[in-house]
Amino acid sequence: MHRLQPLLDPASIAIVGASNNPARIGGMPIAHLTKFGYAGAIYPINPKYQEVFGLRCWPDIEALPAAPDLVVLAIAAPEVLPMLRRCAAKGVRAVIVYAAGFAEEGERGAALQAELAAYVASTDMVVAGPNAMGFANLNTQAHTNFASVFNTAPMQAGTGSVSLLTQSGNVCAAVYAIARRLGVAFSHFINTGNEACVDFAQYLEYLAQDEATDVCIGYIEELRDGARFIAAAEEFARRDKLLILYKAGETDKGSEAVRSHTSALAGDQAIYRAAFRQLDIIQSHDFVQMAQLAHLASYRRRRAGKRVAIITISGALGAILADKFIGAGLEVPTLPAELQQQLRAGIPDYGMVANPVDVTGNVVNDPGFVRTALEALATSDAVDTVVIYAPGYMLDRMAGDLCAVAAAHPRLFVAIDTGAAQSREQLRAGGVPVFEDIGVATAALAPFLLWQQQRQRNRWRALRHQAPPPATALPEVLDEHQCKAVLAASGVPAAPERRARSADEAVAAADALGYPVALKVLSPDIAHKTEAGGVRLHLADGAQVRAAFDQILASARAHAPQARLDGVLVAPMQSGVAELIVGATRDPVFGMALTVGLGGVLTELYQDVSHRLLPVDEAMAADMLAELKAYPLLTGYRGRPPADVDAACAAIAAFSRAVQALGRQVSEAEVNPLLIKASGQGAAMLDALLLAPAD
Amino acid sequence: MHRLQPLLDPASIAIVGASNNPARIGGMPIAHLTKFGYAGAIYPINPKYQEVFGLRCWPDIEALPAAPDLVVLAIAAPEVLPMLRRCAAKGVRAVIVYAAGFAEEGERGAALQAELAAYVASTDMVVAGPNAMGFANLNTQAHTNFASVFNTAPMQAGTGSVSLLTQSGNVCAAVYAIARRLGVAFSHFINTGNEACVDFAQYLEYLAQDEATDVCIGYIEELRDGARFIAAAEEFARRDKLLILYKAGETDKGSEAVRSHTSALAGDQAIYRAAFRQLDIIQSHDFVQMAQLAHLASYRRRRAGKRVAIITISGALGAILADKFIGAGLEVPTLPAELQQQLRAGIPDYGMVANPVDVTGNVVNDPGFVRTALEALATSDAVDTVVIYAPGYMLDRMAGDLCAVAAAHPRLFVAIDTGAAQSREQLRAGGVPVFEDIGVATAALAPFLLWQQQRQRNRWRALRHQAPPPATALPEVLDEHQCKAVLAASGVPAAPERRARSADEAVAAADALGYPVALKVLSPDIAHKTEAGGVRLHLADGAQVRAAFDQILASARAHAPQARLDGVLVAPMQSGVAELIVGATRDPVFGMALTVGLGGVLTELYQDVSHRLLPVDEAMAADMLAELKAYPLLTGYRGRPPADVDAACAAIAAFSRAVQALGRQVSEAEVNPLLIKASGQGAAMLDALLLAPAD
Repeated sequence: MHRLQPLLDPASIAIVGASNNPARIGGMPIAHLTKFGYAGAIYPINPKYQEVFGLRCWPDIEALPAAPDLVVLAIAAPEVLPMLRRCAAKGVRAVIVYAAGFAEEGERGAALQAELAAYVASTDMVVAGPNAMGFANLNTQAHTNFASVFNTAPMQAGTGSVSLLTQSGNVCAAVYAIARRLGVAFSHFINTGNEACVDFAQYLEYLAQDEATDVCIGYIEELRDGARFIAAAEEFARRDKLLILYKAGETDKGSEAVRSHTSALAGDQAIYRAAFRQLDIIQSHDFVQMAQLAHLASYRRRRAGKRVAIITISGALGAILADKFIGAGLEVPTLPAELQQQLRAGIPDYGMVANPVDVTGNVVNDPGFVRTALEALATSDAVDTVVIYAPGYMLDRMAGDLCAVAAAHPRLFVAIDTGAAQSREQLRAGGVPVFEDIGVATAALAPFLLWQQQRQRNRWRALRHQAPPPATALPEVLDEHQCKAVLAASGVPAAPERRARSADEAVAAADALGYPVALKVLSPDIAHKTEAGGVRLHLADGAQVRAAFDQILASARAHAPQARLDGVLVAPMQSGVAELIVGATRDPVFGMALTVGLGGVLTELYQDVSHRLLPVDEAMAADMLAELKAYPLLTGYRGRPPADVDAACAAIAAFSRAVQALGRQVSEAEVNPLLIKASGQGAAMLDALLLAPAD
Repeated sequence: MHRLQPLLDPASIAIVGASNNPARIGGMPIAHLTKFGYAGAIYPINPKYQEVFGLRCWPDIEALPAAPDLVVLAIAAPEVLPMLRRCAAKGVRAVIVYAAGFAEEGERGAALQAELAAYVASTDMVVAGPNAMGFANLNTQAHTNFASVFNTAPMQAGTGSVSLLTQSGNVCAAVYAIARRLGVAFSHFINTGNEACVDFAQYLEYLAQDEATDVCIGYIEELRDGARFIAAAEEFARRDKLLILYKAGETDKGSEAVRSHTSALAGDQAIYRAAFRQLDIIQSHDFVQMAQLAHLASYRRRRAGKRVAIITISGALGAILADKFIGAGLEVPTLPAELQQQLRAGIPDYGMVANPVDVTGNVVNDPGFVRTALEALATSDAVDTVVIYAPGYMLDRMAGDLCAVAAAHPRLFVAIDTGAAQSREQLRAGGVPVFEDIGVATAALAPFLLWQQQRQRNRWRALRHQAPPPATALPEVLDEHQCKAVLAASGVPAAPERRARSADEAVAAADALGYPVALKVLSPDIAHKTEAGGVRLHLADGAQVRAAFDQILASARAHAPQARLDGVLVAPMQSGVAELIVGATRDPVFGMALTVGLGGVLTELYQDVSHRLLPVDEAMAADMLAELKAYPLLTGYRGRPPADVDAACAAIAAFSRAVQALGRQVSEAEVNPLLIKASGQGAAMLDALLLAPAD
């Protein structure tokens, strides 16, 4: 049995601080339990009452005939810790703490929470919260919450398989209300509160193995245990379950509000985005979208992808759908000529067959054709998904054919009806999801279809479990030359350059490398070489090199008298097609993450960068480059020569291996610029930096 | 009486091709008219029937006792023109043509439509369509449509003031269905069909002066008469009516589909966006959003703007709202210390007062404080709009105070309730719009509040009616020197440069201007000077100038033997902080439009440009520059010197005047680059181009 089972699927429940008032936190869970028909034992505990909601009320926990699976503490913060001790003594396995007044409320609260966590760690109990709204198991009606949303949202008729897991009680209630309005049937309603003892990743772990959970929709403010989260998400993927997450703090202001709200630092959004993608998690940005994705999830075993065929009875709606889909990252490919011909057989001249396909209003009078057309689209290799727009009675007339084709073929068909079709439930049951609005349909379909596409080619989860490269020792002196040497050892392409400790050595190096050359000061203590007067470019002969050597050392000494100076680096001047910045930084949640972008000030202004968690191989590096808006600069934009993209990808993958091999010895690594030469001519790191952790 | 009144507000209606079958296009309008209680005379016309829907049926139009205001032609395309002649003879004032088979259906249809248009132009009749679904006046129940949506969408109880105007019948029906689901009450339901005789702008003109119309929501594929559209939109603004438009063709594929659908070329999206903004039109991208904007429109006389105070009972929801609002372009400013102090008086320590304000769940127990807090926010100068998130009963408890504060203060308060508050209608009636979802609320509020903000400072409508600059003659020879001279005459800052027809003249010019200089070939026939070997930079003395002059002329002659060569332009080398591209092109719908961006290849890849219809003054130019993502490059980014933004704005405004003064003589004008020097040092056009229209 999983450790969290008594919390989330309890066989008996006691409520300490029980009340007869259904509006109070000690009354509401008992009201829910009795009203919704929880079959397990319920033990209200309060010395003031004989009976609560028609149930026998017990004076104290010690009086109970047996230890309940789960105790709900509807009592104030100062009373919590003493009561936990009594629960432990009684043999209770799980406790939920409602009380606020812990880490969210300043230093004193944080100390109280630390005390609670330390005590619980010394017991066998599992304790949820504090500052939590409690749970609901909608399949057993085990309500351990004071969420009034269960009084107003319509209760589902049967069992559900969508679990809701949030780091905020109010968000849990809001998403539940919206999703119930849209017909989502739930298994678990979970909000984690302050996570003193059980964090988000542990609940996720439970849901991954929970038979009742097929899909999880979640809301995250901050993850406390990135590694455990990654493992749980991988378990979801392994079991072919779907994880849909909303991450708060998309803007600075949002992050600020989250921070003051949970006293937690919201992690870097871009890294969360990368992690979600690498873990086959669908990232959502809206509550309605989450609910719609949960609905779509039940159709996820159908074959689908981002190339969409649009079938409409209206050219205008076809155009609008194409706009929306393409704007959301999907494709609406022109259909092959043969397929167009097949369709043309049943479509009048003023209809369209290229995609969007406008079958025109007349088509409903020719049901045989509808069937033929749908069959043709179900079996074409040119598209992955078929979306049908037909309002009201028009959809009704096609519904039978749609269901028949969906039954015969695994391809995903989706219907959009802005009217009031009678056939919606027939279609849904027949394997065809139905949306009643174009915007809502797009917001759910686009991430769903892109997820279908991406998970098929997700290399990272396999890559992650390959043996890591052998560990490399970090050199003691981290000057440019040493940093480059470490990276080059893992295969990052080095430029042909030499260290020189005297003017004579510099001239000899330049003679050997060929002119013109550049000289750069070598010092582990000078980060900004140009500002220190430590860089001289385009040196044409030995005399210039000699003069430059002396000037550089003089400037560097004047600029940083205490700096250790190890001479200069001599390198031939090189030019290429583009310069990349390739860096790795340690994310506090997810560990080392890789960033790739084109160098330069505009890249920064346009935030045109791509991120991935390590490790990254050549194919992932190619994806990263292709994601950049400036990518065309590498592929022969406007008469420029195409760049050696393969060499760039190899260099990025080598950089990933180098950073992995260095492990915890570095907190930051960067090659900037990585020069990408013309196609077939390779790449070269022109500058590099490794930083050891500050402490 | 307006010319279109018999079409849109007819006192009597005849239906040619009347049918007893409510599913047929000749039966549905009569079914609607009788079912919904149209009070005017209804004349079914069909020789086959004595009676239709209980009404006397007439054998032909000639038999009618009087000429009806409006005749609906539910007959096929070939029969339309003969019937129009009979309508004209009878004295009919308006006709709606349902029939397809005109311009949308190839050449023969186009010829038929041209014939129809020519005939109608020779009469006094106003003819809608062809290929239209017909109209509905929801205040008189004059249904002249075959839209089945009126059978399924709930009919509004009272009168409405929102008019729906679309270029597609199916879109008209789809938006109507969605908006009715959301409770929008309509005045007119109009779709324009092929617009053979009456185009979108003419309907808009009608709605601008229509007493029953307060708000128009519309859908455009392509405008046929931009000037008339601008005038109608201005009339909307003048009368303080609101125009909300969806423009199709947001992506290439969408444009393509629209094109094949209406045989019309979709205009440039960016220019439509600029025009809508300059005309105080809210641009929508979604049907639900349109409906929500129509709802919000009724609150538009409240004081509102983009600085939003967020009041929540949940820190998490506050963070989410702040994220959404900021992501959509609104501001969530930190509240002034004094206001924070006032709020803190009633908010527990773990709540937030900075904005978002988290009053916490406890606040509902202290209604006095809610009132005080809302009053303080209603009168603060630090915010423009107040959004309250409180689910269900929490909102109910605040509703009375909200209504009281809204009654006492003009500021816009908006409520979001993801629960099931009982007080929604009370709030709406009390001046507080209520949304039931955060995403939907943001999608409607953001454009609405930005519109409120922008229309207050919209200078364009006034600017447009100022006297234009006196006309300028276009020089006969359009070489760089002449183009610059014309632009400089309107005040675009010229660089100190001279024309030279011989090497001697070039040296003399360089001596006078000061070295180093640049030489550029002068020819009206060479557009790409660099490629022709026609540019030499960094010339340091007279000898270099002399040599360069000869080389340039030789290269140019070799590159373009037929080109007219007028010598070279000699200019001192100049450097600045940034280079802009400033151009004007003639949009087929809206006329001359101005584009501003930073020069260079990345600007193009990132599509970082700003557009406006002419004229543009200094303040509008400043807005255009500030819209650029690369704008920080002009204001001292990362240690760069700040650029002379004032000089850039003056140059852009002067360019606008120059293009206006040239009028129809040019189809395109460009200064590229416009060099912007450091603050206080001005700007200079380094190159310029004017193109006369091709024909």
